[in-house]
Amino acid sequence: MKLTVPAAELNDALRKVQSVVSSRTTIPVLSNVLLSAAGAKLTLTTTDLEVSISTTIAATVERDGETTLPAKKFSQIVASLPGGDVLLDTDEQMTTQIHCAHADYKIMGMSAAEFHREGDFQEDQKLTFPCAEFGKILRKVSYAVSTDQTRYVLNGINIDIREGNFVAVATDGRRLALVEKILDDPDSVIDGESILPIKVVNELIRLLDCDGDVLIRLSDSRASFAIGNTLLVTKLVEGTYPTYRPVIPSSFSNTLAIPRETFLQVLNRVTVVLNEGSASVKFSLENDTLTLSARSAEVGEAKEPIEVAYQGAPLEISFNPTFLKDPLKHLDCDELQMRFNDQFKPVLLRGDEGFLYVIMPMRN
Amino acid sequence: MKLTVPAAELNDALRKVQSVVSSRTTIPVLSNVLLSAAGAKLTLTTTDLEVSISTTIAATVERDGETTLPAKKFSQIVASLPGGDVLLDTDEQMTTQIHCAHADYKIMGMSAAEFHREGDFQEDQKLTFPCAEFGKILRKVSYAVSTDQTRYVLNGINIDIREGNFVAVATDGRRLALVEKILDDPDSVIDGESILPIKVVNELIRLLDCDGDVLIRLSDSRASFAIGNTLLVTKLVEGTYPTYRPVIPSSFSNTLAIPRETFLQVLNRVTVVLNEGSASVKFSLENDTLTLSARSAEVGEAKEPIEVAYQGAPLEISFNPTFLKDPLKHLDCDELQMRFNDQFKPVLLRGDEGFLYVIMPMRN
Repeated sequence: MKLTVPAAELNDALRKVQSVVSSRTTIPVLSNVLLSAAGAKLTLTTTDLEVSISTTIAATVERDGETTLPAKKFSQIVASLPGGDVLLDTDEQMTTQIHCAHADYKIMGMSAAEFHREGDFQEDQKLTFPCAEFGKILRKVSYAVSTDQTRYVLNGINIDIREGNFVAVATDGRRLALVEKILDDPDSVIDGESILPIKVVNELIRLLDCDGDVLIRLSDSRASFAIGNTLLVTKLVEGTYPTYRPVIPSSFSNTLAIPRETFLQVLNRVTVVLNEGSASVKFSLENDTLTLSARSAEVGEAKEPIEVAYQGAPLEISFNPTFLKDPLKHLDCDELQMRFNDQFKPVLLRGDEGFLYVIMPMRN
Repeated sequence: MKLTVPAAELNDALRKVQSVVSSRTTIPVLSNVLLSAAGAKLTLTTTDLEVSISTTIAATVERDGETTLPAKKFSQIVASLPGGDVLLDTDEQMTTQIHCAHADYKIMGMSAAEFHREGDFQEDQKLTFPCAEFGKILRKVSYAVSTDQTRYVLNGINIDIREGNFVAVATDGRRLALVEKILDDPDSVIDGESILPIKVVNELIRLLDCDGDVLIRLSDSRASFAIGNTLLVTKLVEGTYPTYRPVIPSSFSNTLAIPRETFLQVLNRVTVVLNEGSASVKFSLENDTLTLSARSAEVGEAKEPIEVAYQGAPLEISFNPTFLKDPLKHLDCDELQMRFNDQFKPVLLRGDEGFLYVIMPMRN
């Protein structure tokens, strides 16, 4: 393999793929990035056997070929280069010479033959979203994914497509976040569910921070996401996601409208007095005023009122403050609606179009 | 104590003092900040019994008095306030009511009587520096302070005043960094040495990032630094700093002039191939060219030439790369001078006026 490529583009490409590198030292080649030069292109690929990311950039290829280089060190070298073009020249012993301006490196790689490659797969369906929109959908639900390793089907976002309706949902059993959207071309999709592992969701959120569209392909056991010249392929979480529709309450006796940013600021202020852990924030509702209050034995107490739209009976209800702050941070709307029945039953929160959040009150 | 003060100014004041708070939980009051209101002023003080920082801000004081509040939580509360004025009102039970806009807090404090206060001290001498200049002096030597707890006299910067000459020096036994300056008013100072603990040096570097002058007062066992409305008082490291003048070589067979920024960039690039630990970077000098090179068994090798001014005999000499990068990062000069005799004897590095660095080569 021998090629020339602009250092800045090689650096961008490495930043896209390097986070997937495996830390399993039992398979050394997984710490490496695969470089494949052919035609006028250089493709960089990393994998941890669950997820793989490839990205392709234009290159002046003098000799086709492949090698793998230690991803972290190679990224550090490329990031430190002075700019301009960089020459990569790999010999038979898998030593790659890197040359840029006056800087010269000889880096030992490993044979590309040992590198695990994703086979092509036959997708059951294809979907397209603008990158920014799909990134926002993932952000609006990903914080609710369970971290409990024993409930592995909850360790991801469930993508549920049913009758032309797209739903992304996550829950840890104590709260549930959901975004739904009617697909533009409902006839082209078939019903089905796929659970995206949270690691992939976080990679996608990073990669989706760009213009253009993402092409999503889903099969029984895998998913792929094509974003510009970058392709992410992942295994899906095996198993069946729990039925979540019955969890969403449908009738309420009271509704509250509340300005989102003020709500988040006041929540942050009032909960400073709390220590980490099983703390709660109390809502006292009466006549267009919501008073948030919190107290801890060690620090003291805090309270602050917010003007809201509320005409129901006076009510006191408590929440886990983290569970309330999480969705507020990822929404764009000016106003939230909270709907509830009493201080024990699940509460529904709505804001941005298609977004829905269910949270259980805490018992004091 | 009852007073009103702008939230933004209270926030700035807390950021100046809060880092000194002690983590020794055996004396709970050391986790608190002392608030003293008198006249039209509020003074905030923290101490860990070694170092104390006080800062004073203007306040509308309705009732003089004192209290102590948990520094971390109080800082978080003040940082989260919406702005405008904040009212602090402390009752007999040492509960402080904090009121700002619609936000209300009641925070439990501890009696100010238990708080450790620095007594005034009679200084042996006074010095004045522009804050920015003194901050730079500390930055140019502080990285060379020893972290070896068993050599406690080396765990600080030695301030050595002799015959009207001011010297700040630090060494860990393998390299030595020094800044010297002829004092403007040499007759007003008397000879003596004081060792500033590294913790205080780091606090000072933070506080000195401002306009105006710092007034330094030194006694046998303590030092104080007045910076604007802020006063830092510290114990000095006890003991006698080793004689460092003989360590500085005075005659050399060769001199090399090298552009500082290029030198640092090339050093960073070449040393990427090294792993942490006992690595070295090799200098090969010949006819106005310095070639830096490095290699590791795991990654490979790197080399890059730099154009320098050098007319001596060809020479190869190796260094600990971290020890070379440290001073380069904190200097402002365009060009460095390196002076040496051979690959075994200590090397002298000069750059900014008054700065001097001695480094031992490594034996390969």
